[in-house]
Amino acid sequence: MKRREFLTKTIAASTVAAAATSIAAPNVIAAPKFRWKIVSTWPPKFPLFQTGVERFAKRVSEMSEGRMKIQVFAGGELVPALGAFEAASKGTVEAGAGASYYWAGKSAASQWFTAVPFGLNAQGMNAWMYDGGGLQLWEETYAPFNLIPRPYGNSGVQMGGWFNKEINRVEDFKGLKMRMPGLGGKVISKLGGTPVLLPGGEIFTSLERGVIDAAEFVGPLHDLKLGLYKAAKYYYTPGWHEPGTVLEVFFNKKAYEKLPKDLQNILDAAAAESNAWMLASFDSQNGDALETLITKRKVKVRRFPDEALSSLRQKALEVREEEASKDPQATKVHRAFNTFQDRVGLWGSISERSYFDAIAKKYQLG
Amino acid sequence: MKRREFLTKTIAASTVAAAATSIAAPNVIAAPKFRWKIVSTWPPKFPLFQTGVERFAKRVSEMSEGRMKIQVFAGGELVPALGAFEAASKGTVEAGAGASYYWAGKSAASQWFTAVPFGLNAQGMNAWMYDGGGLQLWEETYAPFNLIPRPYGNSGVQMGGWFNKEINRVEDFKGLKMRMPGLGGKVISKLGGTPVLLPGGEIFTSLERGVIDAAEFVGPLHDLKLGLYKAAKYYYTPGWHEPGTVLEVFFNKKAYEKLPKDLQNILDAAAAESNAWMLASFDSQNGDALETLITKRKVKVRRFPDEALSSLRQKALEVREEEASKDPQATKVHRAFNTFQDRVGLWGSISERSYFDAIAKKYQLG
Repeated sequence: MKRREFLTKTIAASTVAAAATSIAAPNVIAAPKFRWKIVSTWPPKFPLFQTGVERFAKRVSEMSEGRMKIQVFAGGELVPALGAFEAASKGTVEAGAGASYYWAGKSAASQWFTAVPFGLNAQGMNAWMYDGGGLQLWEETYAPFNLIPRPYGNSGVQMGGWFNKEINRVEDFKGLKMRMPGLGGKVISKLGGTPVLLPGGEIFTSLERGVIDAAEFVGPLHDLKLGLYKAAKYYYTPGWHEPGTVLEVFFNKKAYEKLPKDLQNILDAAAAESNAWMLASFDSQNGDALETLITKRKVKVRRFPDEALSSLRQKALEVREEEASKDPQATKVHRAFNTFQDRVGLWGSISERSYFDAIAKKYQLG
Repeated sequence: MKRREFLTKTIAASTVAAAATSIAAPNVIAAPKFRWKIVSTWPPKFPLFQTGVERFAKRVSEMSEGRMKIQVFAGGELVPALGAFEAASKGTVEAGAGASYYWAGKSAASQWFTAVPFGLNAQGMNAWMYDGGGLQLWEETYAPFNLIPRPYGNSGVQMGGWFNKEINRVEDFKGLKMRMPGLGGKVISKLGGTPVLLPGGEIFTSLERGVIDAAEFVGPLHDLKLGLYKAAKYYYTPGWHEPGTVLEVFFNKKAYEKLPKDLQNILDAAAAESNAWMLASFDSQNGDALETLITKRKVKVRRFPDEALSSLRQKALEVREEEASKDPQATKVHRAFNTFQDRVGLWGSISERSYFDAIAKKYQLG
């Protein structure tokens, strides 16, 4: 059973019991209703990203017994998709959902809280956020915009993209027109390629018609739905540009502070619960989708050669330095991130990596 | 700042705002108080495991604005540590905390919900629990005991143990007296070793005095505190016997069903939030501890040779089959686990593993 079904069934089963005990223990709540709007940057029904926002809102309602209701709007339904940050910042709406690197134009530092090329994976980002000071730095970064950020999901390691030719050496990126946003795009640029910005809905047609030569999107689940396997032959791993993409909800500071404490705590817990749920769902459903891509769609999964990864990494570290020099907050966040990555990277390489080496022998790539 | 400090400060900052708005929006709650007791299997103040139970109880109180209070007892404070399951099952207390493999004597199937040798890592266990039907199977397994289980934490990949000699081939396990509980211990047995059951507090002395030759405990954070580096020279990775140990809270079914729906939802969310927080804390703090062990305590970190891992894996698969044949529920859970591991293992090996290979070159072990 899926978690959502599980929750629904648990609730259904317990309704009878709750009703039966309500006479003995009347639960009289005369509390006010808090009605919020959340605007996201995602298309309607976009799997896990947008359904995650809907799930988040539903859980807040369930935990508050309806005292708090959050109405969900997909990108463009109430404000333009990339207007979410400003709408919540100005208080037009109480909350938004997206990815912090969308707001690089407002704050260079914001890019570190989504995904850093050759940076931390999902477990590493969570460790940084919840136990390593990352969330505090993120709050500092959003404070001038009257926003309070919370991670509400993570995609895990993304895929490295779809290509119509094999990447045998780093020179193969030269002249390549590739859909890749964010810091990753700047790395492609340094290698003589051309990063192209395209919304998800335009990737397939552009790749099929040869307007672009290559494209990255998310991972097997989303890439399968977009049909990218029909427009390109090779599917590369790993997603060096986004090794553990954090998705965010953000709350207008005044609206958040107006809530009673229990509802603030419920918002925080619903976001953290969503974070655990989303990564779990990605891991589970990407597995299915990848199997379909390999066995039914005959996609060739390739790993970037070590030499290419080494060059990509070198350029990525240059891009990180350059972006960090843009303002003092970016410099501060960059330094904290590097210190933390050294620490948690040592542990990850000795624990998780050794585990994969031990367990995954039978899934050797060609 | 740590997550706990962060939460405390957030709450402190928002108290003023909440008080200021309480006149305009009076939050009159005349609901009953629910008072629960939770008994854990852990020693008092045991890092992350027991502090996690305390954090869980605190969060339930914060989210319910004090309508629900859970009093926390460490192992032995109210009932014997390994009496937690029975106490909650019989309704002596409303809840317990532990690890499901402690209850192997009551239900063989319970062993699959904590850690399976050469099984799923933390992300894989979460994927199985929240999106792959694992939690439903766990609920089925605990239903005859009137208990409802929830994951409330994960240690990540544990370490493979402390040894006074190098493990160069699988024959080196022969004759070895090693502290290792659970299914892992049965694997040691198959290799001609002697698994020894010892509580955490007795490991150091037994290892130092040569009563045992080797021992596994948890990971760098806990092993450093126990001082195991003073009693053994080599620290092996990976923890093939526990690649992603799930920690549990469980609720007496009748007590859970007596709660109003919002409090049931709050319990569920607090457990999921705790799950995200605990793995993050392990990843963050194990990194620090491992660095201390390597640089200050001069511990030699070694990886089990491929040949030994291959034999350990073969024996582990035999143990899994043998345990699965003990009763029909174990057979059912075992089959579901294997199907899911195949699916999510494919994805993990192509995503996370490739990421580690790309990122972790500089942490090559000797």
